[in-house]
Amino acid sequence: MNVVCVGSGNVATHLAMALKVAGFRLIQVWSNTFANAVKLAADLEAEAVAELSEITVDADFYIISVKDDAIAAVCEAMPAVKGIVVHTSGITSAEALSRFGNHGVFYPLQTFSKKRILDFKHVPLCLEAGNTVIMDTLKSVALKLGSPAYEIDGGQRRILHLSAAFACNFVNHLYALGDLILGENGLDFDLIRPLIMETANKVGNYRPLEAQTGPAMRGDEKTMAAHLTMLKDRPELAHIYQLLSNSIKKSQG
Amino acid sequence: MNVVCVGSGNVATHLAMALKVAGFRLIQVWSNTFANAVKLAADLEAEAVAELSEITVDADFYIISVKDDAIAAVCEAMPAVKGIVVHTSGITSAEALSRFGNHGVFYPLQTFSKKRILDFKHVPLCLEAGNTVIMDTLKSVALKLGSPAYEIDGGQRRILHLSAAFACNFVNHLYALGDLILGENGLDFDLIRPLIMETANKVGNYRPLEAQTGPAMRGDEKTMAAHLTMLKDRPELAHIYQLLSNSIKKSQG
Repeated sequence: MNVVCVGSGNVATHLAMALKVAGFRLIQVWSNTFANAVKLAADLEAEAVAELSEITVDADFYIISVKDDAIAAVCEAMPAVKGIVVHTSGITSAEALSRFGNHGVFYPLQTFSKKRILDFKHVPLCLEAGNTVIMDTLKSVALKLGSPAYEIDGGQRRILHLSAAFACNFVNHLYALGDLILGENGLDFDLIRPLIMETANKVGNYRPLEAQTGPAMRGDEKTMAAHLTMLKDRPELAHIYQLLSNSIKKSQG
Repeated sequence: MNVVCVGSGNVATHLAMALKVAGFRLIQVWSNTFANAVKLAADLEAEAVAELSEITVDADFYIISVKDDAIAAVCEAMPAVKGIVVHTSGITSAEALSRFGNHGVFYPLQTFSKKRILDFKHVPLCLEAGNTVIMDTLKSVALKLGSPAYEIDGGQRRILHLSAAFACNFVNHLYALGDLILGENGLDFDLIRPLIMETANKVGNYRPLEAQTGPAMRGDEKTMAAHLTMLKDRPELAHIYQLLSNSIKKSQG
């Protein structure tokens, strides 16, 4: 299968590289920033194109992996290709691609950072397609990547995306706040890295509600008051502390 | 070394079992609930005692691992032992044990669940002692457990404990909220387990501020508005969403 990569961000880069490793032929890369297209195309042994109108109509698979706000404009500017066109967004509907006869969604439910290599067997792919022929093709691509694949409709995908904001984006921010508290007091983030790993490992076996520990879960008001006193010069962190502690108490009640 | 275990909660149980495996001799167990002392003592091949006054004065090492609120009363009721007495609390001062000539703190910076086995090489031990002889003993115990050991004073320990509330207790609660959102929509928590693991794995190499992803980090207001609309029947979750998103935006700015 010949593949065109539209976008050069974290998701586009990881997915295109994984497809290349899995034996797909990447033929073109477009990016909003041409220099990024050139760089990614070099890694993929593909051609970099400066204009969306230059995208070939002869590829089998087109991956649009750009900011949600840009998807509509990108579709407009692309030629009316016949191959399968997918986007990788958790929040944009499949219908956003309706000007293409064959379209679908190929949403990787994972967090990508440019510098970090990620085995696609740990990347659940949420697939949506208008018909079974397209769905079968998407599943075969997922299979070649070694990824677990799920048929997920648009509504479910949005729910997964929202849930990921809590379980990934917000979680990482709490790591950052933990790091901030340590750093301000001359303590190294390394000290809590084992705790972070074990907290994640625990919910590999248990539901998070069962795995909950800490003063809010125990109703230990004295410790919570001591923590809030320590945060007296950090009203924003105290606010987060109070809101999440109350939410824990409620969920355990 | 002969060890007495005062308490039978998660920390007491894990620590006492790990000490036994490491070759220490557990001789007595006391618990506020005698049945729990009997159960843990059986596992440790130790004697269960019903009253704190029955605790032997001849042991080398006494571990007080009870609720913070109970530490003072437990100390009062114990005999004036000569061995080293430590507590395992992140928030209580070492001075709480001052009636014992030899005392210190042995705080495991980790999250414990009764059912889950944990290798103590992943349990950083924060040690505090009034003199170097006691500190050396605490370090030798940590070494036998295979745990990384750090000399941490009371103020630093409280900071670590506070930081752990963010990076562990609150993080787990966000997993629980993610699970709640999925469950209400008939989706399985398994779908986001790989994401949770990767989110934790990433900060094994990177600082969390660099690892941040998601709509708040990108300033993607449209996606955030869509998420908030999805949470319209869940004002508490919407509040948490908004507060943490604002905090992400601030920390990235």
